[in-house]
Amino acid sequence: MSDEKATTTEAEPPRERNEETAGGATLSLSRRRLLGTVGAAGAGGLALGGSGGALAHSLSQDRTPVTPLASVGAGRHSFHGTRQPGIVEPGQAHGHLAAFDLAPGAGRREASALLRRWSAAAARLMAGEPVEGVADTGIADDAGPSSLTVTFGFGASFFDRTGLADRRPAALEPLPEFSADELDSRRSNGDLWVQICADDGLVAFNALRVLQRETGRVARPRWQMTGFNRTPGATDRPRTARNLMGQVDGTNNPRPEDDDFDRHVFVPRGGDRRSPEWMEHGSYAVVRRIRMLLDEWDEQSLEQQERVIGRRKSDGAPLSGGDEHTPLDLEKTDARGRLLVPFNAHARVSAPETSGGATMLRRPFSYHDGFLPDGAPDAGLLFVAWQADPQKGFVPVQRKLDRGDALSRFIRHEASALFAVPGGAPEGGYVGQPLLEG
Amino acid sequence: MSDEKATTTEAEPPRERNEETAGGATLSLSRRRLLGTVGAAGAGGLALGGSGGALAHSLSQDRTPVTPLASVGAGRHSFHGTRQPGIVEPGQAHGHLAAFDLAPGAGRREASALLRRWSAAAARLMAGEPVEGVADTGIADDAGPSSLTVTFGFGASFFDRTGLADRRPAALEPLPEFSADELDSRRSNGDLWVQICADDGLVAFNALRVLQRETGRVARPRWQMTGFNRTPGATDRPRTARNLMGQVDGTNNPRPEDDDFDRHVFVPRGGDRRSPEWMEHGSYAVVRRIRMLLDEWDEQSLEQQERVIGRRKSDGAPLSGGDEHTPLDLEKTDARGRLLVPFNAHARVSAPETSGGATMLRRPFSYHDGFLPDGAPDAGLLFVAWQADPQKGFVPVQRKLDRGDALSRFIRHEASALFAVPGGAPEGGYVGQPLLEG
Ligand code: HEM
Ligand code: HEM
Repeated sequence: MSDEKATTTEAEPPRERNEETAGGATLSLSRRRLLGTVGAAGAGGLALGGSGGALAHSLSQDRTPVTPLASVGAGRHSFHGTRQPGIVEPGQAHGHLAAFDLAPGAGRREASALLRRWSAAAARLMAGEPVEGVADTGIADDAGPSSLTVTFGFGASFFDRTGLADRRPAALEPLPEFSADELDSRRSNGDLWVQICADDGLVAFNALRVLQRETGRVARPRWQMTGFNRTPGATDRPRTARNLMGQVDGTNNPRPEDDDFDRHVFVPRGGDRRSPEWMEHGSYAVVRRIRMLLDEWDEQSLEQQERVIGRRKSDGAPLSGGDEHTPLDLEKTDARGRLLVPFNAHARVSAPETSGGATMLRRPFSYHDGFLPDGAPDAGLLFVAWQADPQKGFVPVQRKLDRGDALSRFIRHEASALFAVPGGAPEGGYVGQPLLEG
Repeated sequence: MSDEKATTTEAEPPRERNEETAGGATLSLSRRRLLGTVGAAGAGGLALGGSGGALAHSLSQDRTPVTPLASVGAGRHSFHGTRQPGIVEPGQAHGHLAAFDLAPGAGRREASALLRRWSAAAARLMAGEPVEGVADTGIADDAGPSSLTVTFGFGASFFDRTGLADRRPAALEPLPEFSADELDSRRSNGDLWVQICADDGLVAFNALRVLQRETGRVARPRWQMTGFNRTPGATDRPRTARNLMGQVDGTNNPRPEDDDFDRHVFVPRGGDRRSPEWMEHGSYAVVRRIRMLLDEWDEQSLEQQERVIGRRKSDGAPLSGGDEHTPLDLEKTDARGRLLVPFNAHARVSAPETSGGATMLRRPFSYHDGFLPDGAPDAGLLFVAWQADPQKGFVPVQRKLDRGDALSRFIRHEASALFAVPGGAPEGGYVGQPLLEG
């Protein structure tokens, strides 16, 4: 399986070995640019890449290593491969999620042409190369690829609009309604989905701009959300990133080196009972815009906050003891027989142990869009969860959280979407081709 | 004068010398954190700091050098000093601009207490230290200071609300109306202004959150805007940053090493004819939210785009020839006698040579808040210009641009504000103390 992943995305320059930078680069991408970099380094110099946090939980440990390039900008993933990029890579510092609806009159043929254009543009953008013609904005001209990934997905409505309803995966059935949902339909769902992630804000914006312009008259933006994560090098402690509640968030994610990682996250070769063959090597993305009620949250004492999650805020260690990566002990009690990880703690209620093994890969961004009319911050989590089947990932877990999660009081699910994200495109092909031309 | 600047802000770790990182650190700030970093570097490694763009135009060349720390996170400026931080430092990757209005009933005493709380919190935040009590969110806990700067200013309305109208600087008179203005008053002006800049998004958000919470019942948010610049290390070419039109933007900024830099940007010791003594070592910030009509812009050919500015898009060189830093030759013509830098080119119309020497320091951020109902990107420039007196900086230049700038067709000024930004606070003091207790 690791072979497959290696072809999916070239390894991000392993930041822990960047001292070898000036050596021969194996990526053909841009020797000129690289030489420029090395030249600048001669006159410029070295900065410690303190991105240990991303490293320690690197989701790309099993990729083919390449000779590393020079800087944050030099991080590069390949668009072509068995799987799409933007799923297993460590989360980048900037993210754009955008949904588009097909324009009236646009059908399967137009969608196919759009996906072809999008795939070609994404491949060039991810290689740090300009996209020719009307779409060459120049915005990212001096920057390297900056670990850009572009990922495409299809919403349930796409299949009706393109006359492909009979090929819609069973696994793409609409998410159930949850009792705590306060969903804004204008910011939910959509025919087509694009996820753009990069370590530089201009590179990410440029990709969004180019892809939006490539839609021409075929599709129109439905919603778009922008998020962020920690800048590479901003932390000097090798730990998972924090969210806007201040929690270490992402600790118990499944890891690519786990035996059953692929089974949980990706549709197997040939598809399965709930996913047709055109979805092989694909995944399903659940997107939830979850606002945090930060004013209410901040009124809780540290102890209260920690009992809501079941983990220490300072370092993410379970309240049952140990360090961040010690497994939760769900049975352990204090002297008075009180559960150390409370009954309704988020980490307990969401754990596979209590959800019949349900597992997903969370790859979220924080968002912050100013404040609401009442002065409360419009900020929270752009929750993106990846799984081979939402019925074995997000749905059962969210059902349980919906009923009994101590965190519910402090969050609001404001938008929701589910997308089928097909496997990656080979060179010369495009994402979705087996569906659209199959 | 460079002495003064040295006390204002400790030097940002000079990124070109970061290879010496493991050496003894002179900043007392956090030896523990530093040691942690160096440890991580041992296991981790080096990444080339390709932030030559910021460097080449570093605005802090004349600061006292300190032994550099390790990573993006380790960049640190000092809050205390003769001048406030956030004016001459190279622009960071994330920026929040926020205006607050005093609550009904809050006057000079409450404002003074707020500025004292804000100053104390800003000093701790900028040192990468947690702010105690209710405001300790934990969001930035693992990150270094990440070159955070916090800057405070007063709008004209502040002086009425606090009974200090007789101490309002003449230089703070309202900006004139310009013919192309399409200003939204709800996103303009304000009693108090906070500018937060950092190289990490969580550090910047945390600072905003802490400062907003420190307002208590004294002040309420009026508007807030978020912007971004290139991530340190995302570029490998030593060049000024680009804006969302793809232009190299910032080339002809005045530089701290210029003889008349201080005179143009800062109010002199003792004040001057238009600024009372309490404004000494202060500056005036003009803030304009300028939307870019990117769809219209992108329809122009490269040549048309370049003639709008008077500079090449690829490298920012003047159309009169040379490289990015060659002075514009405003007289030069082609064989047919046509001006190479067109009559209405933005760089010509805004140049001091054509504006009676008017000069300002531009320190903008790009912004991107999704798209407007018609599908156009809600994106552009959070233009922030610094000068000793707006009448000798922004106002005469904008008057000329308003009449004859080729760029006007492609931009919309949507919000505007002017703030008096006093000098820095000494240890134990707070920003605005000479005004509020004087
Ligand atoms: C704003 C909303 C949320 C916040 C702030 C949040 C925060 C956290 C935190 C701090 C942890 C513990 C550290 C870790 O293992 O990552 C965690 C674990 C987890 N969360 Fe959430 N979460 C949120 C929403 C959700 C949602 C909507 C789901 C899925 C329906 C979910 C599923 C999980 C899972 C599966 C785990 C790992 C449990 C384990 O295996 O130990 N979370 N979350
Ligand atoms: C979205 C709006 C704007 C854009 C995209 C823009 C872009 C540019 C660009 C590309 C340059 C040439 C490179 C450089 O020297 O930095 C420039 C120069 C300049 N701009 Fe703007 N600008 C905008 C608005 C303004 C405004 C509102 C003012 C002031 C009223 C202004 C004042 C200047 C000045 C003083 C220069 C330097 C001129 C010189 O000395 O050569 N700009 N601008």
